[in-house]
Amino acid sequence: MVRRILDPLEFKVLKFVQTQKLLSKGESVLVALSGGIDSVSLLHVLLQLREIYRLRVCAAHLNHMLRATADRDEAFVSDLCAKLKVELCVERIDVAKFCEENKLGIEEGARKLRYQFLDNAKRKLQCDVIALAHNLNDLVETMLHRIVRGTGPLGLVAMKPRFQDKIRPFIYIERSEIEEYAKRKNLSFVEDETNYDVRYTRNYIRHVVIPALRRINPSIEKALLQLHVSNMLIERHVEEFLRKQRLVRFRDRTIFSSRKLSDFELVELLRSCVKEFGEQLEFEHVQQLLERAHSPSWKIELAKGLWLEKGFDLFCVEREHDVLESLKIEECGLYDFNGWCFKLNDRIESDQYIFVKLPILVRVRKPGDRVSSKKLKDLMIEARIPSFLRDEMPVVEENGIILWVPYVYVDKRLNERLKNDDFLVLNLLENPFRVILELRKEEE
Amino acid sequence: MVRRILDPLEFKVLKFVQTQKLLSKGESVLVALSGGIDSVSLLHVLLQLREIYRLRVCAAHLNHMLRATADRDEAFVSDLCAKLKVELCVERIDVAKFCEENKLGIEEGARKLRYQFLDNAKRKLQCDVIALAHNLNDLVETMLHRIVRGTGPLGLVAMKPRFQDKIRPFIYIERSEIEEYAKRKNLSFVEDETNYDVRYTRNYIRHVVIPALRRINPSIEKALLQLHVSNMLIERHVEEFLRKQRLVRFRDRTIFSSRKLSDFELVELLRSCVKEFGEQLEFEHVQQLLERAHSPSWKIELAKGLWLEKGFDLFCVEREHDVLESLKIEECGLYDFNGWCFKLNDRIESDQYIFVKLPILVRVRKPGDRVSSKKLKDLMIEARIPSFLRDEMPVVEENGIILWVPYVYVDKRLNERLKNDDFLVLNLLENPFRVILELRKEEE
Repeated sequence: MVRRILDPLEFKVLKFVQTQKLLSKGESVLVALSGGIDSVSLLHVLLQLREIYRLRVCAAHLNHMLRATADRDEAFVSDLCAKLKVELCVERIDVAKFCEENKLGIEEGARKLRYQFLDNAKRKLQCDVIALAHNLNDLVETMLHRIVRGTGPLGLVAMKPRFQDKIRPFIYIERSEIEEYAKRKNLSFVEDETNYDVRYTRNYIRHVVIPALRRINPSIEKALLQLHVSNMLIERHVEEFLRKQRLVRFRDRTIFSSRKLSDFELVELLRSCVKEFGEQLEFEHVQQLLERAHSPSWKIELAKGLWLEKGFDLFCVEREHDVLESLKIEECGLYDFNGWCFKLNDRIESDQYIFVKLPILVRVRKPGDRVSSKKLKDLMIEARIPSFLRDEMPVVEENGIILWVPYVYVDKRLNERLKNDDFLVLNLLENPFRVILELRKEEE
Repeated sequence: MVRRILDPLEFKVLKFVQTQKLLSKGESVLVALSGGIDSVSLLHVLLQLREIYRLRVCAAHLNHMLRATADRDEAFVSDLCAKLKVELCVERIDVAKFCEENKLGIEEGARKLRYQFLDNAKRKLQCDVIALAHNLNDLVETMLHRIVRGTGPLGLVAMKPRFQDKIRPFIYIERSEIEEYAKRKNLSFVEDETNYDVRYTRNYIRHVVIPALRRINPSIEKALLQLHVSNMLIERHVEEFLRKQRLVRFRDRTIFSSRKLSDFELVELLRSCVKEFGEQLEFEHVQQLLERAHSPSWKIELAKGLWLEKGFDLFCVEREHDVLESLKIEECGLYDFNGWCFKLNDRIESDQYIFVKLPILVRVRKPGDRVSSKKLKDLMIEARIPSFLRDEMPVVEENGIILWVPYVYVDKRLNERLKNDDFLVLNLLENPFRVILELRKEEE
């Protein structure tokens, strides 16, 4: 094997690929090849690293049918791949039509179709990873765009070196370095003239905002790279924290304890819960949350029908759901009352049970409910039942008398009843509060 | 008491002061009063809140002697305070001269002098807090400045609502809201014409950069506020984490264990250690650290003579310091050998001791040192002595024979020696490795 000398840029990419573990030996890489200077350079660099990593390098080109030059680009890419003996997957999609039909902006629609196409091409050519030619300037443009539109630190983590099956070997390399490389290597490529259309926000940032910022700091790219790297660290830290967090999920609820959390962790945990309900945590909700995080009991509507509630030390994110108001129990069997699972039987089957005579009525509390001269509400607070559970809790009545409110109240008369006196047994099996008690115990 | 109706802005500030706990009842507030629209408005708002908080409101004005209009401003402020019956502290300082003498830029020098002056005025007027009139636009300008110059997320936490004895009641209020307030209240104020000089970076950001960004998002202030609030949460989270962290400090070293730390925590902990040595952690060091964080043994020079070293699971930040190469022990007493404290005595005073006959030589290891056919270096590695301690560890010789390397090696002949055979006792008292063992034990 002849030991070849790598170009400085190729060596820089090699080192980056190694430290970031972007490639493994023997992998197949699909290069997203537009024909522009970045992707053509990336293809060449990866071909240089082919031997070192024993790579199979393929390419994929999407003809967006948007510009008059689109066919020229496709022809250029086909010739290039033929010359370099690189397998190529090409497709033509009428992006404009798709965007119109789906009511999407051109930039957004094109991105969506492009990623779909790349996924398909990857499958077709049986590749392991997709290599994207984004460079540090692209990253900086995206970060500035997000800063200006409004985002938190994690939203600033755009264009990671590796995300799932996408790798970006050029992401920490400046555009000018790529241009010099293409010149040194005498590479030919096509121009994307839409790059100069400042109507697109991206181009406005590139051609107006960044030159203005460069007057303050000529190394603006390095400055934002610093922020990017720090925010990636925070993101990984948060992912790790979320993985370790104990959440209680049942029905349309997610419950967690806030006791050991910093406000930062609380917000991130909440953000991730809200995402699981298919919604996004808005900044105004973060502000509301921070204002009252340490107050005991409140609720905020996060999105239509999605609520954040706090009760004692517990937070609950819940979708509005129907509540069963009452349930008559007239024969043995299993009953679900708002997630409280009862079994009526002739045997004790749980550590929580009472002896009853039929018929039994299970219902939710009513305003003014009192037991042994105390308000039921006060008893519930004493028992540290979080507010978000109180309106769904079972109140068990026999003959119009409240006999039992699990975890809250047991009628004294029950002490005198004996199993052999021909009573049935009402067992409480699974229930939300049992899970909450476990959660609280873990926190202590 | 007559209940007055607050202006909407006054009410907004009141709510902010309450949620952020900026003021306590009965406090004395010193307003930094330039005479410009922001500080004049702040003075008025605080006078409105005076009754609610039973405040004493004072003001302080520094005449920078920089502009022809400086004396006009001073006169304006004096009149205003006389009219409002507000105690005022005024001073004149030749800022230009100070900056020249101290080789400082005008902006930097003026800021320094201003804060010194405010601290003095606060003491003189016996106030509790200093109220600064920075608004959301100022905050956004500062954040953008830092983003462009290069910073991490914590560096983005500029102009907090409260920092030590400084409060910023206007910090989340837009300049335009203040302008409308001044108009509603018919306030008079002076103009600072240097605000329009784009040679100052701050003004360039205000008059060129922000208008450009506003074309992308008209609510750019709200967008950056979001980032500010999130980064404040991260900052508080990190402060909390640092407080809980166990550091071992001795001589010119700080040692900590990396075992349970995320990369984010590792970087922040290191940043704080480096700061204690009077230096700053540079971004290039962060990158180097991240590349090798999980490799076992390496060192990086962080600043002239300040090193970061890793040995096994331990990190060490250390200033270069002299190392004692050898030490003769010829009589009873206390000896310090590179932080290893020995006591020669006729009694056992430590759980680590040997019996010796004088004279004893304590020295650092030499290349090629071997004991019982093994390399001393290998024994040190087996004993998990971190690399940064190995060159300073005591090797105890009697008659040219290595008898003892604490925690690493004890000569077999020592087993046969008995106390009553007229030996002396060499006790090992405090030593760096004992502390490290404790640290390791805590981590397990």
